[in-house]
Amino acid sequence: MTDASSDSLMPRLKRLREVLLMGPGPSCVPPLVYEALARPTIGHLDPAFIDIMDAIKDQLRELMGTGNRLTIPVSGTGSAGMETCFVNLIEPGDTVLVLVNGVFGQRMTDVAKRLRAEVDTLEFQWGTPVQVEAVREQLQKKEYRIVAVVHAETSTGVCNPVAEIGEVIRPTGALYLVDTVTSLGGMPVQMDAWGADALYSGTQKCLSCPPGLAPISFSERAVQKLQARATKVPNWYLDLTLIVNYWEGAQRAYHHTAPVNMLYALHQALGLILAEGLENVYARHGTAHRRLVEGLEEFDLEMLVEPGARLPMLNAVLVPDGVDETAVRRKLLAESGIEIGAGLGPLAGRIWRVGLMGHTARPENVDRFLDALSDALNDPACRRIG
Amino acid sequence: MTDASSDSLMPRLKRLREVLLMGPGPSCVPPLVYEALARPTIGHLDPAFIDIMDAIKDQLRELMGTGNRLTIPVSGTGSAGMETCFVNLIEPGDTVLVLVNGVFGQRMTDVAKRLRAEVDTLEFQWGTPVQVEAVREQLQKKEYRIVAVVHAETSTGVCNPVAEIGEVIRPTGALYLVDTVTSLGGMPVQMDAWGADALYSGTQKCLSCPPGLAPISFSERAVQKLQARATKVPNWYLDLTLIVNYWEGAQRAYHHTAPVNMLYALHQALGLILAEGLENVYARHGTAHRRLVEGLEEFDLEMLVEPGARLPMLNAVLVPDGVDETAVRRKLLAESGIEIGAGLGPLAGRIWRVGLMGHTARPENVDRFLDALSDALNDPACRRIG
Repeated sequence: MTDASSDSLMPRLKRLREVLLMGPGPSCVPPLVYEALARPTIGHLDPAFIDIMDAIKDQLRELMGTGNRLTIPVSGTGSAGMETCFVNLIEPGDTVLVLVNGVFGQRMTDVAKRLRAEVDTLEFQWGTPVQVEAVREQLQKKEYRIVAVVHAETSTGVCNPVAEIGEVIRPTGALYLVDTVTSLGGMPVQMDAWGADALYSGTQKCLSCPPGLAPISFSERAVQKLQARATKVPNWYLDLTLIVNYWEGAQRAYHHTAPVNMLYALHQALGLILAEGLENVYARHGTAHRRLVEGLEEFDLEMLVEPGARLPMLNAVLVPDGVDETAVRRKLLAESGIEIGAGLGPLAGRIWRVGLMGHTARPENVDRFLDALSDALNDPACRRIG
Repeated sequence: MTDASSDSLMPRLKRLREVLLMGPGPSCVPPLVYEALARPTIGHLDPAFIDIMDAIKDQLRELMGTGNRLTIPVSGTGSAGMETCFVNLIEPGDTVLVLVNGVFGQRMTDVAKRLRAEVDTLEFQWGTPVQVEAVREQLQKKEYRIVAVVHAETSTGVCNPVAEIGEVIRPTGALYLVDTVTSLGGMPVQMDAWGADALYSGTQKCLSCPPGLAPISFSERAVQKLQARATKVPNWYLDLTLIVNYWEGAQRAYHHTAPVNMLYALHQALGLILAEGLENVYARHGTAHRRLVEGLEEFDLEMLVEPGARLPMLNAVLVPDGVDETAVRRKLLAESGIEIGAGLGPLAGRIWRVGLMGHTARPENVDRFLDALSDALNDPACRRIG
């Protein structure tokens, strides 16, 4: 039997305490977003709910810098957004170029290959940005249907030059697919100005909404490619040709039951960002980032990424020699209630990933983290032996 | 600009009122589940969260009547559960038999075909159950890798004889895939006793949790088929060979960021069901169903389905001649705050679907609905002209 009790919260939920979420996501959730999440569930075809859906589409367009009609949250986490963009746009044999300088570029490659695309990659050293000239050269060598890149590489803290990459793609006619999972809501995203044709994000980074939804947007060109498919999208759940009939038009046709309460939370989270003002929100991320970097430098800690390519919301900090990186993370979480992230892939054990995303990106959080980190670095239990 | 205000709930969320959800899902959510949903978000690799994940797996096994190790909630709605089962088990050319007597059997067919299976269907009249003898005959004619059926057909209110179907499948060696989206938590589900190899459900029906998660379970035989695949699962997001490394074992490997708060809600919802006791919960659904049918009979309304094949939690009521079915549903929602569902496909306009799922399945809700329906049937505005 489980430890259920019919008149109170489950013990594991009761025991939960607020954690200062300074990892690679989820980020801290504002109280009003929790309040939104717990509003009464209504039907997914209720006119009051359809009104909320329409408002979310407008909010997302503003945040993404796009006028695209097809701009909706997909019913899955950020990775479902990636899957949605690729599965709707790829037909078997399509040529795809993925620009890879971290885990999420690698993941794009894996996703596209599973869909039977002919995938090439251009690889750049992890911790450095994509080089636009290399992209230009590759595009002169071969014709691609789709070129894909990650704006903010969450695994390394690198910002890729998506506007410049868009410029070299435009003359080739390829569709341009951009991952903005970590950037959206924390730094300018200008989908239309970049010439991006498909864009996806997640709710649990700079939107400061719990994980569970993936905002996406398709340009008219992307929609045309979708409509011209010779074969059905090989994924019923994420088939945008069906999903749009629920999200658009006067008559909304049931596809799957929308995650109603998560959408309440997203509506509120987007409302908070737009009310604060995009420029203010981005400035707050920048200020918190600079405060963090200055504080780390006082401890003689180094960043993985060169200043010009650093993301404000994801800071890759090199673990100093002699420090047990796992022990530090454990101590921060257990004793200070602060979560930071570990490195992934080749950076596992070499970096910490310190997130300053959305609601988390505030000076008092930076200071609290720096104090706790200072304690950990001075703790003999956090030294590595041998 | 949107109508955001930084210090209060968005107006559309503030305006939301409790609706008595008596449609085909979502169902009414108990207050403790809303409370669970709004607990503080923590990291998806936080030990406290992994503890909740492990508890959910145990709760699901109890509810599903299975000892299967691979028993987890997938990060999408019920339809993502369907997609997960098919995409992990099907390889191109696999023979699949789908037993179809409603929308969700049809959907299974569509999903399987997109995955390049060789799909046959056995069709039964909508509103009647699958006939076991017809299944037996078909299985003698041809060898199948997978046979799929819906336990509780949400589009018609029919209960299919899944235990008996399992008996005729067992000797053939085919994998047996059962949709329990609407049945789980409202009537006995005995995955192991049925000999089912893959099972999926949704949270927004009899679990009375908001929509957004899809509990699934795979038998050892299903896991073996998965592990023996010649090709990667053509869907990265729902690839169980990767997802299990996050849900199982001592070292949890990040796959995608789990929908943390939705999982809190599921843990609480399952806890409430198990604390009430499965037999009590099923009896409550049966009692509410009988009260509803008796009440409808007093209005001379008829059910689509014969008594022996009726589901307790989804009641298909024939719309009487001369009644405007849309006007009735609109009036119920606008004036009484009660949502019921419309018919789908060939049953559109012919039936109402009255849900008695989970927290909704209570006598006072049945009575409130019957009173409101009586008013609507007597309202000249709900008569059809011509």
